Amino acid sequence: MSDIKKVVLAYSGGLDTSVIAKWITETYGCEVVTFTADLGQGEEVEPARAKAQALGIKEIYIDDLREEFVRDFVFPMFRANTIYEGEYLLGTSIARPLIAKRLIEIANETGADAIAHGATGKGNDQVRFELGAYALKPGVKVIAPWREWNLNSREKLMEYCEEHNIPVDFNKKGKKSPYSMDANLLHISYEGGILEDPWAEAEEDMWRWSVSPEAAPDKAEYLELTYSKGDIVAIDGKDMTPAEVLTYLNKVGGAHGVGRLDIVENRYVGMKSRGCYETPGGTIMLRAHRAIESITLDREVAHLKDDLMPKYAEMIYNGYWWSPERIMMQKMIDASQETVNGKVRVKLYKGNVIIAGRQSEDSLFDASIATFEDDAGAYDQKDAEGFIKLNALRLRIAAKKGRSPL
Amino acid sequence: MSDIKKVVLAYSGGLDTSVIAKWITETYGCEVVTFTADLGQGEEVEPARAKAQALGIKEIYIDDLREEFVRDFVFPMFRANTIYEGEYLLGTSIARPLIAKRLIEIANETGADAIAHGATGKGNDQVRFELGAYALKPGVKVIAPWREWNLNSREKLMEYCEEHNIPVDFNKKGKKSPYSMDANLLHISYEGGILEDPWAEAEEDMWRWSVSPEAAPDKAEYLELTYSKGDIVAIDGKDMTPAEVLTYLNKVGGAHGVGRLDIVENRYVGMKSRGCYETPGGTIMLRAHRAIESITLDREVAHLKDDLMPKYAEMIYNGYWWSPERIMMQKMIDASQETVNGKVRVKLYKGNVIIAGRQSEDSLFDASIATFEDDAGAYDQKDAEGFIKLNALRLRIAAKKGRSPL
Amino acid sequence: MSDIKKVVLAYSGGLDTSVIAKWITETYGCEVVTFTADLGQGEEVEPARAKAQALGIKEIYIDDLREEFVRDFVFPMFRANTIYEGEYLLGTSIARPLIAKRLIEIANETGADAIAHGATGKGNDQVRFELGAYALKPGVKVIAPWREWNLNSREKLMEYCEEHNIPVDFNKKGKKSPYSMDANLLHISYEGGILEDPWAEAEEDMWRWSVSPEAAPDKAEYLELTYSKGDIVAIDGKDMTPAEVLTYLNKVGGAHGVGRLDIVENRYVGMKSRGCYETPGGTIMLRAHRAIESITLDREVAHLKDDLMPKYAEMIYNGYWWSPERIMMQKMIDASQETVNGKVRVKLYKGNVIIAGRQSEDSLFDASIATFEDDAGAYDQKDAEGFIKLNALRLRIAAKKGRSPL
Amino acid sequence: MSDIKKVVLAYSGGLDTSVIAKWITETYGCEVVTFTADLGQGEEVEPARAKAQALGIKEIYIDDLREEFVRDFVFPMFRANTIYEGEYLLGTSIARPLIAKRLIEIANETGADAIAHGATGKGNDQVRFELGAYALKPGVKVIAPWREWNLNSREKLMEYCEEHNIPVDFNKKGKKSPYSMDANLLHISYEGGILEDPWAEAEEDMWRWSVSPEAAPDKAEYLELTYSKGDIVAIDGKDMTPAEVLTYLNKVGGAHGVGRLDIVENRYVGMKSRGCYETPGGTIMLRAHRAIESITLDREVAHLKDDLMPKYAEMIYNGYWWSPERIMMQKMIDASQETVNGKVRVKLYKGNVIIAGRQSEDSLFDASIATFEDDAGAYDQKDAEGFIKLNALRLRIAAKKGRSPL
Repeated sequence: MSDIKKVVLAYSGGLDTSVIAKWITETYGCEVVTFTADLGQGEEVEPARAKAQALGIKEIYIDDLREEFVRDFVFPMFRANTIYEGEYLLGTSIARPLIAKRLIEIANETGADAIAHGATGKGNDQVRFELGAYALKPGVKVIAPWREWNLNSREKLMEYCEEHNIPVDFNKKGKKSPYSMDANLLHISYEGGILEDPWAEAEEDMWRWSVSPEAAPDKAEYLELTYSKGDIVAIDGKDMTPAEVLTYLNKVGGAHGVGRLDIVENRYVGMKSRGCYETPGGTIMLRAHRAIESITLDREVAHLKDDLMPKYAEMIYNGYWWSPERIMMQKMIDASQETVNGKVRVKLYKGNVIIAGRQSEDSLFDASIATFEDDAGAYDQKDAEGFIKLNALRLRIAAKKGRSPL
Repeated sequence: MSDIKKVVLAYSGGLDTSVIAKWITETYGCEVVTFTADLGQGEEVEPARAKAQALGIKEIYIDDLREEFVRDFVFPMFRANTIYEGEYLLGTSIARPLIAKRLIEIANETGADAIAHGATGKGNDQVRFELGAYALKPGVKVIAPWREWNLNSREKLMEYCEEHNIPVDFNKKGKKSPYSMDANLLHISYEGGILEDPWAEAEEDMWRWSVSPEAAPDKAEYLELTYSKGDIVAIDGKDMTPAEVLTYLNKVGGAHGVGRLDIVENRYVGMKSRGCYETPGGTIMLRAHRAIESITLDREVAHLKDDLMPKYAEMIYNGYWWSPERIMMQKMIDASQETVNGKVRVKLYKGNVIIAGRQSEDSLFDASIATFEDDAGAYDQKDAEGFIKLNALRLRIAAKKGRSPL
Repeated sequence: MSDIKKVVLAYSGGLDTSVIAKWITETYGCEVVTFTADLGQGEEVEPARAKAQALGIKEIYIDDLREEFVRDFVFPMFRANTIYEGEYLLGTSIARPLIAKRLIEIANETGADAIAHGATGKGNDQVRFELGAYALKPGVKVIAPWREWNLNSREKLMEYCEEHNIPVDFNKKGKKSPYSMDANLLHISYEGGILEDPWAEAEEDMWRWSVSPEAAPDKAEYLELTYSKGDIVAIDGKDMTPAEVLTYLNKVGGAHGVGRLDIVENRYVGMKSRGCYETPGGTIMLRAHRAIESITLDREVAHLKDDLMPKYAEMIYNGYWWSPERIMMQKMIDASQETVNGKVRVKLYKGNVIIAGRQSEDSLFDASIATFEDDAGAYDQKDAEGFIKLNALRLRIAAKKGRSPL
Repeated sequence: MSDIKKVVLAYSGGLDTSVIAKWITETYGCEVVTFTADLGQGEEVEPARAKAQALGIKEIYIDDLREEFVRDFVFPMFRANTIYEGEYLLGTSIARPLIAKRLIEIANETGADAIAHGATGKGNDQVRFELGAYALKPGVKVIAPWREWNLNSREKLMEYCEEHNIPVDFNKKGKKSPYSMDANLLHISYEGGILEDPWAEAEEDMWRWSVSPEAAPDKAEYLELTYSKGDIVAIDGKDMTPAEVLTYLNKVGGAHGVGRLDIVENRYVGMKSRGCYETPGGTIMLRAHRAIESITLDREVAHLKDDLMPKYAEMIYNGYWWSPERIMMQKMIDASQETVNGKVRVKLYKGNVIIAGRQSEDSLFDASIATFEDDAGAYDQKDAEGFIKLNALRLRIAAKKGRSPL
């Protein structure tokens, strides 16, 4: 059917990617290498080894990528205060380029000429995997079974399993979730099921990482976050690695009902889709990062970052992490973070993330100037008149010429 | 001292602007017209009449501007999902252009050649008042006593009162607040006092419009907001005017601990300042507006709005409401709202504003395409391959030429 | 092969689209309606009728769209000073949405369910035609033979002609041009042939609309252009329709060697391509429009237009004329042009377009303020000090905190 | 009058700054250090020494800054294809931050606490000098005599000279030019005089650096420019320093009538002003840089640069070279230039700069893909269908819901 000899498959160990492994072997008559990553999704990845072996896979990669994920992907993104469409913290989007990178690295190590993934033809993830792969290995081939096969119903998949002796208990234990989910250290997402009606409220038992605000403790909890160059490096005085930071914030945030989101978003492939997300740590990080920037960044630097943020978010959402424009923009963002050092105190209470204080050696906040009290000549109020007069000049000239804004 | 004959003063009825009225009369030897507006600040404005009369003022204007304020200023601003520096809902900024407009209208009616206000020379408000005034009446003179006089301590002000028989109980009853405050239907703000230390947490008894999340009811409340062309026109099925909408949302939001904000912001005059804000209704409106837009706006229209929003916010923050660029941009924003119709269900609970549903006759959400179930051919998954391939083409060409994003 | 019953074909009367007409009839077994437009390409369109009849076409549309083209497409685009990638005046791009619109109108009139065009699968035009068509008639089918058939060499095409009795002299008389060309009232373009080497200079005999600067007259010529709301409405005092304006400027400009361009551009489909363009009238219009705007537009309005122009140009280049974001942005652009009235004097000389003067009743240029002579108090130079001081404040605070820009 | 002890004056050696030197000494009773720079203005700077001595100046700085000017200011700016308001190459603006930097360096060396300059209170230059100075030495004082004194007519200046024994032949020899001029290696500018009427064409004898296109040679001249990381490093195969490059291009360009510009621009201080500029080398550099970028830059990198260019130009025009936002943006621009290497061939003829070829080892132009001939499978035209279909999806959904772009 093609000249593909070996393919690296992003393999979760679940039923779908197990079927895919088998289907590719059969359909393309090529070898399959599986790659399973621990990105902090909260499930053991080691069991994927036995499952892959049971499918006859010879080359099996299982990697713990949690530190790399947070250090090289999540943290750089948060330096930009990135939000897509005013709400979404890009939890799924930001994991894809790392998976693409590892797929290609493994392809290079194993001499594979193709990669494969289990993303559908309707979503953003196929785009993110494949743009990344093409950018990193331009001649790579891509196998995307969901766009190619005809196993597009649960029944047909089950039939296929039976015919090919794929143990159905590869599937997650217990009742199949009615939602399509994705998880990593930054978030867990839910799509499908009753969420396909945007008027329907998400059911409480859908959420997995956080308690509801109602169920959260009646007592607030304070955290002190220490920033270095825009990244959190310690919490409550304790140094932590990037993955430790996010793991800890997820735990504490989730316990306080922080980080739930329910939105309708615009996919890159052109349709709107409803998604629910839990991002406890990310939600805290976004607020706190803005707080530390508020005292350490120059105004125009901050505004320029704000101007560009939607474009940067779009790049990540659409799958262009490995593009030259994203990399170029990152240089600018990172340059801005040299002075983003200091501490932020946040209060968590029943879904709220409240900024309780910020301080920094690099603070540009100057109480002696801003004060309502006597400023000892630090600021000459008379300067304001000229400032206003000249800023008004073009408006006055226009008004004199009869142009009225009313 | 100058050739000013008559000046219209933005007069609150408080001590400061009473002193200003007297000081101007004395210093400039000119007539003073007072203008007091009800913008929803929550205090009676009618008492300002007697106070002005006591000061010898002959022309006294007292206007209820609440509907105009929300209809022509607040609502248009919220159509753009406007936030300054990622956090601030511009509650003070948006009231200033309306006051400037009325000052000039009254100047035209009364034959005054100058306006005056009680804003200090360090803040943004002087800029907003004066840019507006100059844009609307280019030859107008401006008197800004705080930039001119030497009464820059509470003691000197008190002395001045005594010398000039200004009753000190013109001041607000009871203990003087340690904060500099401003209020209107959109928000109340606090600056100064202990807030001048950004590490200090605001004290609970500072807040006036909202209970703390802790003190809010244990039971959530749902609201159903009806949108027409981007504005809320009914709540829970009851038609309301713009000011009624905001009044109601403030009441309910405040009762549920919604809308407190504590930030350090960058003033147009060049310094950073700490401010605390309560914006219960506005906080609900922002989230809900994004929700109704999420199903009714085209993706690229929404993204273009997001790209431009920071600039639009900056215009308003900096005082350029009456500028041609703001007006030009508003045309585009308003044009985008033709289809922003429908309903949003929000849940309020202890400081949280949770989107519980959105629906619209103008919805672009198409479940038949987005579905994880069989879509009956509405979307051809094979199209995605070409979409990705061509979007990747430039990346592949670059990679082939040896450019590596790693 | 499909359920297409009737297709409207963009038919030039040339060999390629004649083959396409026949090929569609054969391949799809459906009726073909031809549509031929006079967009000012400089060739008779009426001969297309007999050719279509010879091919057995029954429904033949031949339209003179020159006025509509300039009035509703070219002029609105020039209001934005639109240039793609710093150089290209979008001569091809801007004609496509009009053709798409007419194809769909004719499809609606004739009950056709599909449209067809002769654009290749590598270029931008297919995108522009089809995005337009889908936006205007979402259920329309598209036939793009160059993406579908195997007649992808000149030889195969000729064979096909012979087999199907298509007279080869349908082709343009004389020697086949070595270039792929496209023309309309705004420009003529050249691609392919030796241009595929970006180091090779275009040959003089390629250019058709303009003389070389060397061959242009030794005497300069002045034109006086009258603007109304951003559009030229008269030249040298003579009122003209939009198409007359552009026709005249092309003639005079071309005679003076104006408007040649040789670039490498980035196509939407992901590749770079070399193109040469002659746009005599457009080149004059761009310079002159900037000149009239320079005295009639507010600074910030002009800057906002400049900020957005590249995005607007991209929309048109990529084929999104009929998108809601382009339409929304046009509203803003058009709003800015209310005051763009007056006269511009331009001097044409051997390829140069030199602005020799501009004047307007709506001018915001105020010599009494800008003058180096005594301005009689129109401007108080002392205001500049405060203006600078406050603009410098954030820089001074940062420097005091030890941040050095060096 | 103040506590200023020593001031560094930007001293041209001309009459105005000689008067200023004297006036400062008298008025402020402080020491004056003069600083005269060779920025390529085309006048000897050494004579300034004797003049300063004649004025009694003890510390005299005369620097040749031409290489630094082009290397660290002009070239970085051209990497961004910078143009202000669509036309102006920022020749004056870009020299100011270097002068500000030297003024401050000299102030630090000589223990001066103030700087002074001869720019008027109406222009941009005062802003550029002073913003730079404040950013580099926040406590510095600024003396701007034109904003302070009352010598604001030629007559009063002359009187002052007589009274203070300042030799009037300090003035340029011969007839005083009717224009206010400024020159450096990048350009010479003209303002004032008859130019204050925007309808009046500039007189031929005003221009000093270039012949008119009419007077230029009848024979074209070709140049081959070699780029390394976005900067020209050789011309016609001969390696040159930055200042040599610009000097050479000015000479050749000026001889061919290249680089004249006549515009009305918007000053930062709020007024419109008419200016004429000669920028022969810069005009060539801009076109050629775009040409080399056209084959070496990724599309989205190029577009991002284009999107941001107007903002970058505004920063430079307004005097924010030494701001953190400009420096941050420069990092991004410079990062984009790593691959901007290769050669551009330009043809100069009677005012025209014509791109005749571009080539690069880093070229992303791939003739094998773009070709109209058989591409041997490098590009699959069928991919275009999916690309278009998904890009059209949101438009089709909207159209189906009844939204019409017509």
